[in-house]
Amino acid sequence: MKKIINRPENVVDEMLEGMAAAHPDTLKRLPDSNVLVRNEAPVLGKVGLVSGGGSGHEPAHAGFVGENMLDAAVAGEVFTSPTPDQIFEAVKAVDSGNGVLLIVKNYSGDVMNFEMAAEMAEAEGIRTEQVVIKDDAAVEKEDDRRGVAGTIFVHKIVGTAVEEGLNLDEAAELARHTAENVRSMGVSLKPGVVPASGQPGFTLQEDEMELGTGIHGEPGMERKPMQEADRLTEELLEKVLDDMDVAAGEDVAIMTNGQGSTPLMELYIVHRKVAQMLKERNIHLKQSMVGEYMTSLEMAGCSLSILRLDETLKKYLL
Amino acid sequence: MKKIINRPENVVDEMLEGMAAAHPDTLKRLPDSNVLVRNEAPVLGKVGLVSGGGSGHEPAHAGFVGENMLDAAVAGEVFTSPTPDQIFEAVKAVDSGNGVLLIVKNYSGDVMNFEMAAEMAEAEGIRTEQVVIKDDAAVEKEDDRRGVAGTIFVHKIVGTAVEEGLNLDEAAELARHTAENVRSMGVSLKPGVVPASGQPGFTLQEDEMELGTGIHGEPGMERKPMQEADRLTEELLEKVLDDMDVAAGEDVAIMTNGQGSTPLMELYIVHRKVAQMLKERNIHLKQSMVGEYMTSLEMAGCSLSILRLDETLKKYLL
Repeated sequence: MKKIINRPENVVDEMLEGMAAAHPDTLKRLPDSNVLVRNEAPVLGKVGLVSGGGSGHEPAHAGFVGENMLDAAVAGEVFTSPTPDQIFEAVKAVDSGNGVLLIVKNYSGDVMNFEMAAEMAEAEGIRTEQVVIKDDAAVEKEDDRRGVAGTIFVHKIVGTAVEEGLNLDEAAELARHTAENVRSMGVSLKPGVVPASGQPGFTLQEDEMELGTGIHGEPGMERKPMQEADRLTEELLEKVLDDMDVAAGEDVAIMTNGQGSTPLMELYIVHRKVAQMLKERNIHLKQSMVGEYMTSLEMAGCSLSILRLDETLKKYLL
Repeated sequence: MKKIINRPENVVDEMLEGMAAAHPDTLKRLPDSNVLVRNEAPVLGKVGLVSGGGSGHEPAHAGFVGENMLDAAVAGEVFTSPTPDQIFEAVKAVDSGNGVLLIVKNYSGDVMNFEMAAEMAEAEGIRTEQVVIKDDAAVEKEDDRRGVAGTIFVHKIVGTAVEEGLNLDEAAELARHTAENVRSMGVSLKPGVVPASGQPGFTLQEDEMELGTGIHGEPGMERKPMQEADRLTEELLEKVLDDMDVAAGEDVAIMTNGQGSTPLMELYIVHRKVAQMLKERNIHLKQSMVGEYMTSLEMAGCSLSILRLDETLKKYLL
């Protein structure tokens, strides 16, 4: 597998250096850390917003640091949770005295390490709240659901809301409310390759796809022969609509997310069918996001995330 | 090769339908055409801006339709020039009586068809100017140089300038001035696959890369063993810097562009080295664009585009 890298053990460090060099007007890297922080942080009077997770999902999460979004993103090694001390550094850097909300994807390592960081913050007198995102409808049991692309809706909505003055408790409540109204479902066609191993995370036959694969290559719901785009889109969209009982007359936002190597052309072909299906069901598509928001290195495939919109969510998203 | 499509002959039509469905606040599709037009077009008193080319390079060009950018984008079939009649439809849709500037990448089919459309417009009393972009430094002879990712700098700069009131002659002059100050150089690691054929456009060995491959898989300058990111970045950046004799003390913008399936992580690793090299040479990096701007379906690889900035270009870009 060909990759444009130097030493595999340096990919995260060098990527973060590149991000900081590319966007000095927006963010800076905390010294000796894997934390990228918004230049203005801590923003006086504002609740701080921190997210993060393993690397390899870019632009998540550092690409979402900025105004009306995150105050900091903490990067772990590829597909590996960030450490508690790094998360704690991020919390300290963004707290203006109004507390910090941690947006955590539901993986045991992430949940544990963000929790430890929260305890470290508590010990230094910094209030934190955590919200754990479990939007992956591919997993049956709710507590086991993984956090995937729908997490970006939470970044955006809560990011805007805290900029407008919500306090920590209100922000945490809004984050949970957003998370309850997001579901995602993905399909993979080809695995990504972790730089350190140089090996594909799983294997699929040339005519095969896997529904519900996780963003680290975790096994999905079902393997089946490749389908044409319209049929595949029906499977993905019906799954998320049914999971949340979205009814005619409701308003939604949809993210059609590329997993890494799927051309934008294909994402728009999928999104076309999404828009058609919603129209047929009299569900109103109020916002579309089509592109790469939460990737898995060079995995091929896509995911659909749906956000059911009420007046509160519309206020901060649209 | 697995693709998320329906019938290969429908990919462009369905993609355009998806784009129009996703972004109704920004653009609309002209009926029975492959033309996407900014909703406000024709903008009263403003020079119209039209670009286009073969499909398969998304987000180019339809993704750059909007305020301070293009008024319309015309899509050909995959890797195939748009037809003169479709380009003419775009011209008519965006002309407010102030004329239309056509931004054309230097491929014989594109140049011929845009020229024919210009003649059709002339016959109907619509003034046009054309600028042909030849930024690919991989090709020795200037007239044979292809238009690649650097084209996006022209969209952005001229798009902003015409919004601020430049007339057609001034816009054409600015476009040519921008084009003269842009150079690009790419590398490919893995070909893209045209949907209609289902076959890779070229072949590369598992440890091989090709410098200077065109965005349609045209043969490059040189095939050589894969190199580490830093060495590869040196080759790309030195080529464009030398080609334009960029000197210490000058200001530049850089686009580190993904060809389709290269992870954002790798683009930032490249960009880190770009920033380091510029600093060593005392060349000032005033703007960075890192991501997918001009792709080649799922080709793996990247390109660097450099724009030498003077006061005029800074005014409209930064």
